[in-house]
Amino acid sequence: MAEAKPSIAFIGLGAMGFGMALNLVKRGYPVTGYDIWPPALERFRAAGGHTANSPSQTVANKPFCICMVATAEQAQSVLLSGPDPAVPAMPYGAVLILSSTVSCDYVRSLDRQLHSLGRGDIFLIDSPVSGGAARAAEGTLSIMAGMSEEALDKVRPLLAEMADPKKLYVVQGGVGAGSNMKMVHQVLAACQILAASEVMGFAERLGLDLVTTQKAVLQSDTWNWMFEHRTPRMLTHFQPVASAVNIITKDTSIITAEGRRRGFLTPMTSVAEQVYFCAIGRGFGPDDDSSLIRLYTESKGAATVNLSETEEEKLGLVMDLMTGILICSVGEALAFASAVDLDLEQVFDLCVNAAGASTILGKLGPSFIAALRAGVNTNSLVAKDSEGTIGAVVERLQRVLETAQQLKVPLFLGSQAFHILQRALRVTSPRAALCAVVSAWVVQ
Amino acid sequence: MAEAKPSIAFIGLGAMGFGMALNLVKRGYPVTGYDIWPPALERFRAAGGHTANSPSQTVANKPFCICMVATAEQAQSVLLSGPDPAVPAMPYGAVLILSSTVSCDYVRSLDRQLHSLGRGDIFLIDSPVSGGAARAAEGTLSIMAGMSEEALDKVRPLLAEMADPKKLYVVQGGVGAGSNMKMVHQVLAACQILAASEVMGFAERLGLDLVTTQKAVLQSDTWNWMFEHRTPRMLTHFQPVASAVNIITKDTSIITAEGRRRGFLTPMTSVAEQVYFCAIGRGFGPDDDSSLIRLYTESKGAATVNLSETEEEKLGLVMDLMTGILICSVGEALAFASAVDLDLEQVFDLCVNAAGASTILGKLGPSFIAALRAGVNTNSLVAKDSEGTIGAVVERLQRVLETAQQLKVPLFLGSQAFHILQRALRVTSPRAALCAVVSAWVVQ
Repeated sequence: MAEAKPSIAFIGLGAMGFGMALNLVKRGYPVTGYDIWPPALERFRAAGGHTANSPSQTVANKPFCICMVATAEQAQSVLLSGPDPAVPAMPYGAVLILSSTVSCDYVRSLDRQLHSLGRGDIFLIDSPVSGGAARAAEGTLSIMAGMSEEALDKVRPLLAEMADPKKLYVVQGGVGAGSNMKMVHQVLAACQILAASEVMGFAERLGLDLVTTQKAVLQSDTWNWMFEHRTPRMLTHFQPVASAVNIITKDTSIITAEGRRRGFLTPMTSVAEQVYFCAIGRGFGPDDDSSLIRLYTESKGAATVNLSETEEEKLGLVMDLMTGILICSVGEALAFASAVDLDLEQVFDLCVNAAGASTILGKLGPSFIAALRAGVNTNSLVAKDSEGTIGAVVERLQRVLETAQQLKVPLFLGSQAFHILQRALRVTSPRAALCAVVSAWVVQ
Repeated sequence: MAEAKPSIAFIGLGAMGFGMALNLVKRGYPVTGYDIWPPALERFRAAGGHTANSPSQTVANKPFCICMVATAEQAQSVLLSGPDPAVPAMPYGAVLILSSTVSCDYVRSLDRQLHSLGRGDIFLIDSPVSGGAARAAEGTLSIMAGMSEEALDKVRPLLAEMADPKKLYVVQGGVGAGSNMKMVHQVLAACQILAASEVMGFAERLGLDLVTTQKAVLQSDTWNWMFEHRTPRMLTHFQPVASAVNIITKDTSIITAEGRRRGFLTPMTSVAEQVYFCAIGRGFGPDDDSSLIRLYTESKGAATVNLSETEEEKLGLVMDLMTGILICSVGEALAFASAVDLDLEQVFDLCVNAAGASTILGKLGPSFIAALRAGVNTNSLVAKDSEGTIGAVVERLQRVLETAQQLKVPLFLGSQAFHILQRALRVTSPRAALCAVVSAWVVQ
């Protein structure tokens, strides 16, 4: 007879949480779910789960608790500070898996709170996920988990039920490291979601056909996962809504707040965040994030300009813009990973297999990592003949910005990337390898 | 009998040009005007001027030609490349005063063109103006003129008829230096026009009363000329239209293009420019630039946040935001002035008496200039007890950004200023004097 599966308490039955909890039910776990929204409880019972009426009731006598609420504030409330909180009711030696996307700062403060409340017996697992509701329900999520060695033994089988076996990352660095890993990945996501709109918007203002542009980018070295997945919806009136503008701003807030707290510069993500806030102010928050192209294609009162460029030259400008943005978003992500002491090889491995992937990350990531490890020794950064140079990228981006200026198209990311690359150029040389861009984030 | 006043050719009878030309008519000069818009010619004749039918006809036999068209492209056309251009028809040894706002680069290329066409006999005066149409018509403009020594003797009496005696600046550095001086002043103008909207928009989103906020800023060390002159129109539905959004983008384009050409970083002006382009795309180009507050006050779908700050604390956040922006716009302007080899004392003297003025410029300008001259020797930059430190400003701006993030208000300038100050903090120390911020623009 097979060993009985342990009981699971599951707090937070939203889109992601419901899928994750249901997957465990299907795999034979007794799961008791809780949510503040009664219809979610009914739906969960109908799907074969048990439910409870409070966080404390949910976790009583359960060796595992998975918390999948939306924010750190909600986690703090259901676990400790709200009515009938979970933690005091958890049995001795229980495992608490926090899968909400929160800052490293929060999850570490939670760990300290457990200890100061005399509940150091609880094994806290910092375990953000990504992959969306469909993969949650299949049990094939990406999971980035940070924890103590001892906790790993206890939790690995359960995490393995929820993750794609190739995408279960145990992140070195203990509690907080999982959240840092997700945060670093979301630097790429946040910049590249907006980049898809900025680049396609620029293309439209150049007079290019969007389908032609889309194909050209996807077949080039400027391919990136977000562009591939966002641009189809730009061609179908931003339908269906797959990922709302509101969603990515949860991540940008974590990234920029953590940057400020640590004195780490996030010029790319910060400017993206301001643009997201503009979009939310205009009421675009619930819309698919591919709809951000609207911020770039509005052209009331813009000058009519007769551009002399051929279609091929215009496509070149579009790719030069994407190249500059990608180089700087990769630089910002990897430099941030280094600043929070993540294993850079693992960051690279995770990001090239996830939504932050790009050809540029795949090609340049290893040299960026080497430059970060070497402390950006500028003497060693002269580009080999086969590689691109900072000087060449700056020159091409300069032409992009000049054209955008004639057309009066805002290029928030492109302009910021130009400044970052130009700064790198000044502390290195025009012949410096592209990896020298990391100097922009590293203390000189 | 008084000496007869010399004949003046005047090309470009727009709002500014018409006022300038009319002022000369009133002062007894025989003025022949030209414009491509026939009603302007009729109106000029009705006001006592003469008119001509082409640029060449306008300048024939006139010892002076003043060119006041809108852009470098228009100047190039009327002077050299268009139909019946002016330059070939100018008499030997004539004086050509270019008062259009153009880049240093363009006016120097015009000088080279004159020489290569064999018209090195023409005395070219690089003479941008500021002050608006009313002061143009009174002859009390600010004029920033660059020219050769020999040309100065010939042109000074005529410039004196058009300028306020205290605001006629002969800029050292010859042709091009006048345009550079105006460009540097417009860095302050471009950042501070948008700052008025960003700061007042943030105040509104904080729930502050705009009149109270306006008074508090004007009575504080965050006073600046643009805020004083823009905020009244925010309270009268942006009426009357005194300076359209489209106008300032002419200047930002010159500033950022010249920055790119020289490898000088303009992070503040560049992000302002993107916001201006957004506004133009939405159709706000012809509106008064005080209406940019609309970009910040839209709050559809933004989170409802209960802020714990008192009204006084909220006003403090508003002033901290303005302080950060002002410090960085002053830093960008003075560092650019230094990069283009202007006399920094003269820049300071001009800016504190013009639309770029602020209490912070008046107080900190001299120490910023000293830091730029000393090559940002960071050891000498520790703040005296009485002065502010970079560390304190960064800390306060951090609280501003955290609050804005909760409210989802975009702070384009505030976020960029934070990055600039944080970077300065990293290459100096938290106790560094505020002038250390110039390190962000100077090659390390």
